[in-house]
Amino acid sequence: MDLWFYEKHIPGTGITLKIKNVLYFKKSRYQHIGILETEDFGRMLTIDGMVMLTERDEFIYHEMLTHIPLSVHPDPEKVLVIGGGDGGTVRELVKHREVKNITMVEIDRDVIDASRKYLPGLSSGLKNPRVHLLIGDGIKYVKGKKEKFDIIILDSSDPVGPAEGLFSLNFFKHVFTCLKEDGILVAQTESPFMYQNVIRDTFRYLKEIFPVVRMYFAPVPTYPSGLWSFAFASKKYDPILNFRIEQARNRKFRTRYYNEDVHRGAFMLPEFMKNLVR
Amino acid sequence: MDLWFYEKHIPGTGITLKIKNVLYFKKSRYQHIGILETEDFGRMLTIDGMVMLTERDEFIYHEMLTHIPLSVHPDPEKVLVIGGGDGGTVRELVKHREVKNITMVEIDRDVIDASRKYLPGLSSGLKNPRVHLLIGDGIKYVKGKKEKFDIIILDSSDPVGPAEGLFSLNFFKHVFTCLKEDGILVAQTESPFMYQNVIRDTFRYLKEIFPVVRMYFAPVPTYPSGLWSFAFASKKYDPILNFRIEQARNRKFRTRYYNEDVHRGAFMLPEFMKNLVR
Repeated sequence: MDLWFYEKHIPGTGITLKIKNVLYFKKSRYQHIGILETEDFGRMLTIDGMVMLTERDEFIYHEMLTHIPLSVHPDPEKVLVIGGGDGGTVRELVKHREVKNITMVEIDRDVIDASRKYLPGLSSGLKNPRVHLLIGDGIKYVKGKKEKFDIIILDSSDPVGPAEGLFSLNFFKHVFTCLKEDGILVAQTESPFMYQNVIRDTFRYLKEIFPVVRMYFAPVPTYPSGLWSFAFASKKYDPILNFRIEQARNRKFRTRYYNEDVHRGAFMLPEFMKNLVR
Repeated sequence: MDLWFYEKHIPGTGITLKIKNVLYFKKSRYQHIGILETEDFGRMLTIDGMVMLTERDEFIYHEMLTHIPLSVHPDPEKVLVIGGGDGGTVRELVKHREVKNITMVEIDRDVIDASRKYLPGLSSGLKNPRVHLLIGDGIKYVKGKKEKFDIIILDSSDPVGPAEGLFSLNFFKHVFTCLKEDGILVAQTESPFMYQNVIRDTFRYLKEIFPVVRMYFAPVPTYPSGLWSFAFASKKYDPILNFRIEQARNRKFRTRYYNEDVHRGAFMLPEFMKNLVR
């Protein structure tokens, strides 16, 4: 059987991947979840037909979402992850010994269960004793919360369906309140080539709330346009001026994308992206 | 009619683009040339079924192939372009007033003619009086040539068919001989995610010949993996140590990708790419 997966990133443009095997397919309470074995990119997690990750290129996304803020904050003890049910973000976070406490709030238990079964290379960190897993709505979790975090990471899916509210002004205000006075927020913010309106809105909201807001970017081959953006928003620290370069250079763990050069280079934006967030 | 173009980048992975109109399709002496109107990416040039460029994202590729060496060489008067029949590289080169003489050697006259007719936004620079157009084989052109250039740009198609020889050790040796004693070579060197063997070989060859060899990268959405690499090889100048930053910052022309930050950031390689060219 010749089985091909297609994702239309925008109506007339998409990616296609040859599928060797369908490992999991379930309509959960919130969304359609799929785990497919691809010919070239290892196993792939899809939600509502959109690629969330593949085993072969997820390292770029997860390393950039975690090691950037962790190499800026001088004392990152408490970290909150919203979304990230596949475990990739937590897997990178637990590499940092100085992080004492990781809370992950994922809305869909089925994403965690599927990842635990079929994506052990991602979900392995979830069983670390420093990790506290909560099944629930991240939007409700941060609303009126008294607990404060050093770093909050928004590892959301695309802004349609359950993740839509994770791109709103109100949500970012609640996130701000949940950060300590020197806290850092990092979020995935979609393709600067294909979703320019999402990015303009998101960065406008963040700039209303946070004193420091910077965009950074990385290539992620299986994401729309292959070019992905992230927001670094913080109450105090600048990702370059306060970059703890020695910490990044002398890291005790292996990375495949992130390093001290990448940290600086990722904030050096092309003209069209500078214009987007001006 | 619902018409979709597919390119398989590797056997089980590809891109798909909706086509509004087929403007040109011809088997030339060397290759199949197509110009298609896409739904989302403007007009697209294909050679043997592979995307050479689209109007919407070609700016990244062409700016990175030209403004990087032009912002390093202190006196770039004579430039040679091998390939580049669409004209995009020459369009960027003529923006630099200090360049007195541009020679372009393209093997396939039909590529130039098609681009002149259907891609005026790219081919416009070809009629500039500083440009000398030669129809011929770039490999033969540099072999035993006495004329010397300040900068040579290899704007080749993929290393199959007529462009295969443009990735060989012997060819690079001839290119070296055609450069002045402070000359710079820049070449497109394929996707570091998908064609790692091509890149390993190419950089090994270049390092045998040139004292300075550096890789740089940029995202190009419609190219395989969306991540593209380039080689900067030179007899004297380092792209960062000898970067004429004031020249780049005060450039008199508009760019959409390149700027002085991008110049430095593009050489800050991720771990897996550092390992590729170590």
